[in-house]
Amino acid sequence: MDMLSIIEHKRDKKELAKEEIEFFVNGYTSGSIPDYQASSLIMAIYLNGMTKKETANFTIAMANSGDLLDLSDISDIIVDKHSTGGVGDKITIILMPIIASLGIPVAKTSGRGLGFTGGTADKLESIPGYRVDLPIKEFKQNVKEIGISLITTTQNIAPADKKIYALRDTTSCVSNIGLIASSIMSKKIALGANKLVIDVTCGNGAFMKTVTDATKLAKEMIEIGKHAGLEVRCVLTNMDEPVGKAVGNQLEIVESIKALQGNMEQDVYDVVCSLGEQIVIMAGKAKTEKEAKALIDDAINSGKAFNKFKDLVVRQGGDISYIEDISKFENAEFIVPVVAKKSGNIVNMKTEEIGKIACFLGAGRETKDDKIDMQAGIVFNKKINDKVKKGETLCYIHTNDKEKVDEAVNRMQKAITILNLNKVELETILKVIK
Amino acid sequence: MDMLSIIEHKRDKKELAKEEIEFFVNGYTSGSIPDYQASSLIMAIYLNGMTKKETANFTIAMANSGDLLDLSDISDIIVDKHSTGGVGDKITIILMPIIASLGIPVAKTSGRGLGFTGGTADKLESIPGYRVDLPIKEFKQNVKEIGISLITTTQNIAPADKKIYALRDTTSCVSNIGLIASSIMSKKIALGANKLVIDVTCGNGAFMKTVTDATKLAKEMIEIGKHAGLEVRCVLTNMDEPVGKAVGNQLEIVESIKALQGNMEQDVYDVVCSLGEQIVIMAGKAKTEKEAKALIDDAINSGKAFNKFKDLVVRQGGDISYIEDISKFENAEFIVPVVAKKSGNIVNMKTEEIGKIACFLGAGRETKDDKIDMQAGIVFNKKINDKVKKGETLCYIHTNDKEKVDEAVNRMQKAITILNLNKVELETILKVIK
Repeated sequence: MDMLSIIEHKRDKKELAKEEIEFFVNGYTSGSIPDYQASSLIMAIYLNGMTKKETANFTIAMANSGDLLDLSDISDIIVDKHSTGGVGDKITIILMPIIASLGIPVAKTSGRGLGFTGGTADKLESIPGYRVDLPIKEFKQNVKEIGISLITTTQNIAPADKKIYALRDTTSCVSNIGLIASSIMSKKIALGANKLVIDVTCGNGAFMKTVTDATKLAKEMIEIGKHAGLEVRCVLTNMDEPVGKAVGNQLEIVESIKALQGNMEQDVYDVVCSLGEQIVIMAGKAKTEKEAKALIDDAINSGKAFNKFKDLVVRQGGDISYIEDISKFENAEFIVPVVAKKSGNIVNMKTEEIGKIACFLGAGRETKDDKIDMQAGIVFNKKINDKVKKGETLCYIHTNDKEKVDEAVNRMQKAITILNLNKVELETILKVIK
Repeated sequence: MDMLSIIEHKRDKKELAKEEIEFFVNGYTSGSIPDYQASSLIMAIYLNGMTKKETANFTIAMANSGDLLDLSDISDIIVDKHSTGGVGDKITIILMPIIASLGIPVAKTSGRGLGFTGGTADKLESIPGYRVDLPIKEFKQNVKEIGISLITTTQNIAPADKKIYALRDTTSCVSNIGLIASSIMSKKIALGANKLVIDVTCGNGAFMKTVTDATKLAKEMIEIGKHAGLEVRCVLTNMDEPVGKAVGNQLEIVESIKALQGNMEQDVYDVVCSLGEQIVIMAGKAKTEKEAKALIDDAINSGKAFNKFKDLVVRQGGDISYIEDISKFENAEFIVPVVAKKSGNIVNMKTEEIGKIACFLGAGRETKDDKIDMQAGIVFNKKINDKVKKGETLCYIHTNDKEKVDEAVNRMQKAITILNLNKVELETILKVIK
């Protein structure tokens, strides 16, 4: 086998054999195949596509390129949750304690943020003392003892995906649904769950802009899961506005705590329920969505979910007094209102731009090594379909960098469209695909 | 401008602007654009194609990436001849002295051989003393004084093409007609002629296997020429058998000398006339092919062409006594007949394989730094449509490496198909395209 004939086969729209795919993935990861051959093949894959079989083999080869987490000693059923990324997405932090409080073990590793989307691991770190870097042994121990652990992994998970993703990023080959699906699924497979619910975000603040593309991505991931023995269900959720009211690490933690105390924004609640229902059903704790929803509601209303969250924070080394009294969280030095320049109805929010403004304020990383300002971000007062009067506050900007205020306010005003129009169509849950 | 958006445009089938093409060609040549981005773009070009305008701009950008020969001080009309490669192709060595003897200045640079095709520069070097590496000043001086010089250039001709070709070679992107056309034409444009006849070889010993592909390539090159102010005419010639009787450097020189003395194989004569006619017409020395042919016939029959060849050899430092007495050329140590294993008609010759056998015997290079054995090669006794009897000699193998004889004889026997069939169709000149 040689790389030239593998490139030639894909160039000529032939189906690559499993062995050819493994030869490429392993050779590229080890460094025996150079970047320029890999990028040539990736462009051919981008343009000529992959069959279902190829996509599955490609994904599994990437999953196998590094460490594989074995969580089978925790339980027969290990559920995982993934989001394809968005702005203000704190769903994991709210949902997973609910799930754990229902007796479903949650052994979840999350990523850090990059670009305009935040990362759950960063958000959790805004709780003083919270350690996201627990060793696997302690991680598993916590799941066994309290039913939940949320960490970020320091293990070598799908290194092939890391290397191939970096190459795609520098050769204009990111936006291909087959490649996106295999990148996501390779990491999920390596992380050892056997039931996975994916929040496929869709809209102007997501990687998938249309329901058509989001549906395609969902189906690809479900199909890959079938080949890898991983049951996948996807919920397509709206990302034409930020999720909930807060964007930014500590601000989202505070919103999550309030949510677990029963004070949940409607859109957050809809996403939590919709994803939660599928998890509860896959874990065998309910038969129908209605039954599952009743369990979720009870977990929130009874305080069981909030208590589970507190257990989690304590176990991970976090200072529980902050959770019990959110006024202990210190705010950013500058909190500046962004006001409406005219009266009307909010008909559009440029969600990706809002994510970028939060990042600009210090809430995110523009490159991997940037430091995050945990307090920075945006808190919305109004969202789509809210009526506003001229001079009314649309949102508050939180930052510790005074010099960024003017630009952020200015950009924020342009990111929110106010018109004299009736309500626009806006469904939080677009579709469930299983 | 940035490379990512250039890749993206071609990936999405948009036409690249002249500036984008120049940005890529110049950036890649200078090293500011890495191999992996270049190979990604090249694969996108391979799969999505280029428009006529893109191909022309790409070619001209590659031509401009290095030295440009300025031959305008020699004459208003500078003719050049190119072959897309074949086996036993000694046409340049025979044709160009004929052209020069008709008063048309010949300032020609030729390449060396690689793989199964030979190179004119190597062949000329088999004449003891012949210097192919004349400095440009001496090269031009010779053309001015005797009307001809044949060299290989040591100048920096189209370095972008060299680098891009090497990349295509290692990423399965060679076999694309647009890229082949621009590679050939970039060098020809840089070499400074304004009239060019191209021998587009076609058949099992050529890069173009079918008349359809050869026609496409010819049309692409003519089109590029139009954009670059270079008049191009193409002659499609058959490469389903070697050209003439000899394959190998010194063996082909000997055949060329005999040809210039009037003892020319029919197929060699057909190709010489067909290409020569177009050159003579383009140079304004004749109006019709018939007129041009009469001039060519006269140049051969009168001995003018042979005398011009002798002038050339003297001027380039070659030992003229070899030209005057070809028995002075020393043969290879081993000359071994390959005999027919059965009686019948030769219906097929695997021409590329024959080129490879010659290369294996020492006549060619497998890699750029291999040394050539000038005496090695093959001389045919029989070609397609010749009747043979069992035991009759098909050809002679010439080599200085005794250990290679058995394998070469064996491979040679397999490369020639003898059947009890009537004559097969075989036209030497397939088409003239202008």
